[in-house]
Amino acid sequence: MVATAWANAREQVSLDPAVTNLNAGSCGPLPRPVFDRVTVRARMAAGPMDFLSRQLPPLLWTARERLAGYLGARPERLAFATNVTGAVNLVASSVQPHLAAGGEILLSDQEYAPMRWCWERVARHQGLVVRTFRLPVQPLGSPDEVVEAATAAMGPRTRLLFFSHVVSSTGLVLPATRLCEEARRRGVLTVVDGAQAPGFTDLDLAALPCDYYAGSGHKWLLAPTGVGFLHFAEDQGGVLRPPQVSWGYRPDGENPSDERNRFGSTDRLRNLECEGTRDLCPWLAVPSAIDFQAGLGHGRVRERMRELAAFTRERLSGWRGLEPVTPAHPGLSGAMTAFRLPPGTDTAGLRHGLWDRFRIDVPVLDRPDGPLLRVSTHFYNTETEVERLAEALKELSK
Amino acid sequence: MVATAWANAREQVSLDPAVTNLNAGSCGPLPRPVFDRVTVRARMAAGPMDFLSRQLPPLLWTARERLAGYLGARPERLAFATNVTGAVNLVASSVQPHLAAGGEILLSDQEYAPMRWCWERVARHQGLVVRTFRLPVQPLGSPDEVVEAATAAMGPRTRLLFFSHVVSSTGLVLPATRLCEEARRRGVLTVVDGAQAPGFTDLDLAALPCDYYAGSGHKWLLAPTGVGFLHFAEDQGGVLRPPQVSWGYRPDGENPSDERNRFGSTDRLRNLECEGTRDLCPWLAVPSAIDFQAGLGHGRVRERMRELAAFTRERLSGWRGLEPVTPAHPGLSGAMTAFRLPPGTDTAGLRHGLWDRFRIDVPVLDRPDGPLLRVSTHFYNTETEVERLAEALKELSK
Repeated sequence: MVATAWANAREQVSLDPAVTNLNAGSCGPLPRPVFDRVTVRARMAAGPMDFLSRQLPPLLWTARERLAGYLGARPERLAFATNVTGAVNLVASSVQPHLAAGGEILLSDQEYAPMRWCWERVARHQGLVVRTFRLPVQPLGSPDEVVEAATAAMGPRTRLLFFSHVVSSTGLVLPATRLCEEARRRGVLTVVDGAQAPGFTDLDLAALPCDYYAGSGHKWLLAPTGVGFLHFAEDQGGVLRPPQVSWGYRPDGENPSDERNRFGSTDRLRNLECEGTRDLCPWLAVPSAIDFQAGLGHGRVRERMRELAAFTRERLSGWRGLEPVTPAHPGLSGAMTAFRLPPGTDTAGLRHGLWDRFRIDVPVLDRPDGPLLRVSTHFYNTETEVERLAEALKELSK
Repeated sequence: MVATAWANAREQVSLDPAVTNLNAGSCGPLPRPVFDRVTVRARMAAGPMDFLSRQLPPLLWTARERLAGYLGARPERLAFATNVTGAVNLVASSVQPHLAAGGEILLSDQEYAPMRWCWERVARHQGLVVRTFRLPVQPLGSPDEVVEAATAAMGPRTRLLFFSHVVSSTGLVLPATRLCEEARRRGVLTVVDGAQAPGFTDLDLAALPCDYYAGSGHKWLLAPTGVGFLHFAEDQGGVLRPPQVSWGYRPDGENPSDERNRFGSTDRLRNLECEGTRDLCPWLAVPSAIDFQAGLGHGRVRERMRELAAFTRERLSGWRGLEPVTPAHPGLSGAMTAFRLPPGTDTAGLRHGLWDRFRIDVPVLDRPDGPLLRVSTHFYNTETEVERLAEALKELSK
């Protein structure tokens, strides 16, 4: 696609023209067709019970089928969730009683803090320990190094492996399939944090040998806030226990049906999804989000994101002391490029300066191994915006 | 207020003109100013991280203060929730380890089914039993009879009393203050399901001697779907444990601060409220919902609801075999009037007939002691709508 086509595509995204938004990795803006779709809420506002009980179920099943198709999953193994936080907490509280005390839960050292705390709570309650393995850092030449680091850390007491498909702070893409294969071979349960993955990388969940895969739609898929999912392996369906008892509740020990029911769900999924009267309209907007990017071409979008990421790497590497921490290897990176900031950087000052003076939305992250700048480049971003960031960094380091 | 004033007020509510909505007890429609306010979501759509991290916190604190003022509560004891289901599940999982095995959890026999299942799950996991006491039925002359039924059921093994402030199926208002006093005198923990209460009845939570009070805003308060709250007694703050570990997480054993923090919350409340990136805009619309009814006059709204309820009782009692199950006593009833349907009523047929032929949204409930018709009359309803229901019942019983 030529530049004007991307400019036209950008026009369809509800972006504040005063802002340079390089932060899809936190939360993406909504394309107008997706925003229009989620205003199906107006129907709920005017006739809530008719909407919730009659109009919603077929829309919900369609959304589930469409999301399943997009993810390469089967709809009856796909529970909607609010986000990855909710989905991983659901898995954690469900598997907790099945993790034999004295064992260990293995995480990479780059996991999202609340997810690490979540597993630490499980470990504390159940008498296990959380251990982390160090993800190799730059220069990182091949996915093999990641697989070696993880497998070297797995031992006879390892009960569960938790890792991010795409590392939130650096955009590093982990070789999920190989990690899950290695874990499965050792009888280790796998839970994958795919918060950044949908829209960022091609997913084929049926082919991924993991036990649980959680994803969020409000980042790269550009679906509304409130869209998340949990995909589970067939033999794990009986393990999941709803965090909340609501109208879908099936007592432990029952084996609920996997057939579509009159709620746009299955009895098994509704047990996990139903949490009283709440706003499910974000889930219903998922087909619009998929259609929007399909209209541009999923492959072309991904190619454009990589093109912008390469431009970002080229433009900012070495600029004002920035060093890339995201590998250039195409199997290890995608649409997020993170840079180590010079030691001693005033991160609070930089954060405020970028926003207050330049209206650039880009996260400055305080990490144990030093501060990072993380640049997300979705299709709607431009080379000009990256230039603007470079200029702002120069001004702010004066 | 005269009839034209109520007609004008009704004009401000987004109601489908083709529908007779007698179902605020399930979910209320939105007044236009509230709907307009919750479209603050458009700002989130265009600049999500700026909205979530900078714009939202002061709005959230204001919403909390306004809701606290409306409920007669202190903001630092008021956690926002999605609905009563979420709030009661939070209480249940938190108090579970504190309920000594061998004891009993006491509920009325008219509790909302998922809440009963929730306590049954707690009892099963913790080695207690759930016992129910029978709420007195019509003719019911005074709140004393309810207090007597509950206190007669409390024994030395009773650890917790759970009851609805307003019974969902019948609109019966329970004497919450006296029930909580009796429980407290016996060292019994109290959890009140106030799903129907906000907007239906005057609340002064600081004066109500209960341990936990959960409420929903999407019914009589006419706030958006997704507005709920949990109010807790000062000495219970340390008991609550978040169902999800997220950014607000504080490990057990810490005593988080009750001071306002930079997230529009307190550290204690954020531990309970934060569940990853999600749509908090419904909470921000609470002040608009309060203002809307304050503009009409809270007292006048309540008076009008009672007037319509009295009209409903008068019009439908004895009509096509209907018998009221909601007491007429003003201390025991409010804006919902339920009627026992004649034995043998085809409830599925009646439900479909009322909607498909007459577009009347009014629940027909299958209850263990026989089918009920529950009529909710909010200020926006009219005598004409009740007449329409009466005529429809006549047509459908032909």
